[in-house]
Amino acid sequence: MKGEVPAVPADGLTTRQRRNRPLLIVHTGDGKGKSTAAFGLALRGWNQGWSIGVFQFVKSAKWRIGEQTALETLAEVHTSTGAGGPVEWHKMGSGWSWSRRTGSDDDHAATAAEGWAEIKRRLAAETHTLYVLDEFTYPIAWGWVDVDDVVATLAERPGHQHVIITGRRADPRIIEIADLVTEMTKINHPFDQGQKGQRGIEW
Amino acid sequence: MKGEVPAVPADGLTTRQRRNRPLLIVHTGDGKGKSTAAFGLALRGWNQGWSIGVFQFVKSAKWRIGEQTALETLAEVHTSTGAGGPVEWHKMGSGWSWSRRTGSDDDHAATAAEGWAEIKRRLAAETHTLYVLDEFTYPIAWGWVDVDDVVATLAERPGHQHVIITGRRADPRIIEIADLVTEMTKINHPFDQGQKGQRGIEW
Repeated sequence: MKGEVPAVPADGLTTRQRRNRPLLIVHTGDGKGKSTAAFGLALRGWNQGWSIGVFQFVKSAKWRIGEQTALETLAEVHTSTGAGGPVEWHKMGSGWSWSRRTGSDDDHAATAAEGWAEIKRRLAAETHTLYVLDEFTYPIAWGWVDVDDVVATLAERPGHQHVIITGRRADPRIIEIADLVTEMTKINHPFDQGQKGQRGIEW
Repeated sequence: MKGEVPAVPADGLTTRQRRNRPLLIVHTGDGKGKSTAAFGLALRGWNQGWSIGVFQFVKSAKWRIGEQTALETLAEVHTSTGAGGPVEWHKMGSGWSWSRRTGSDDDHAATAAEGWAEIKRRLAAETHTLYVLDEFTYPIAWGWVDVDDVVATLAERPGHQHVIITGRRADPRIIEIADLVTEMTKINHPFDQGQKGQRGIEW
């Protein structure tokens, strides 16, 4: 199945041009695995030597998930040996690291908007090759970040920058411009049987 | 939503016992992210210091995907600094590393059965804390591995061993005993627009 191409579009691009097109990827739906699969893609990107930027908008905002430690360990390997690529990991919950706001700031809407403004700057500067905008659907759904601005910025981003957006209820306007959208659906879940999350699995 | 528990079952277990129950997780469906999310969970497990065993049954069988390099790099960090946990990565396509068979062996059914036999031995010996059985649904669907044996072995596995099975068309008998099943569904895919896979995204 790999490599099967159902239809060749009349977009005037060569296969190589299409193959190397930067992708907008969305992981949405109510099931598990949206963020985890995004961090798995970051592993691949690290292995390609890409600069990875992770921006966590909501979940695990004040605490550190296992993927952060693992990817930051890989970033240290990159620094010391040159293998792989650099990784930056930014969290809204503890206050964006570049921000002058304090961690105790409770104006989540302003903090989310500030996160998006920084991502826009980085996209314009072509800072990273892969951006993980984790749980970015929520500040959009809540009106903290303007969806039209997101759509225009992503559609017109320069160079070769891949962007992954995760979260439930992705806005249809973002789905519309995405190259790859996967919906994760819950079929069966231990929470249904009274089991809470556990270390190593949920974080 | 995190920590919300809809119903407490009358299974005689304490919350702590349920919380620490070893999980059987299935990632299925026709969409992307099944394997990638499993390798993302391996990142979390590594961070917990778990012993991770990855067994790739089909895809990328003769070549190395980015996650393998990244997780093996983390395994080296574990060896040299003690951080995280050990990782073993085994591929059917190049011949299982523990096997006496040669890489040119074309008897895929026998090789798959041999992979499952080794996993059974490891489950009995409690070798790993997390097993990723990548694309394991296919040898089951093709009758190379007996599904009743898989179900019985997983249902009765000793100790605290988590198992993740990935692949399309997971057998209903495996779904039935799984603790967490996520279906990845394709909504929109660049293959539909004549784009083939690209480095860093597809592998």
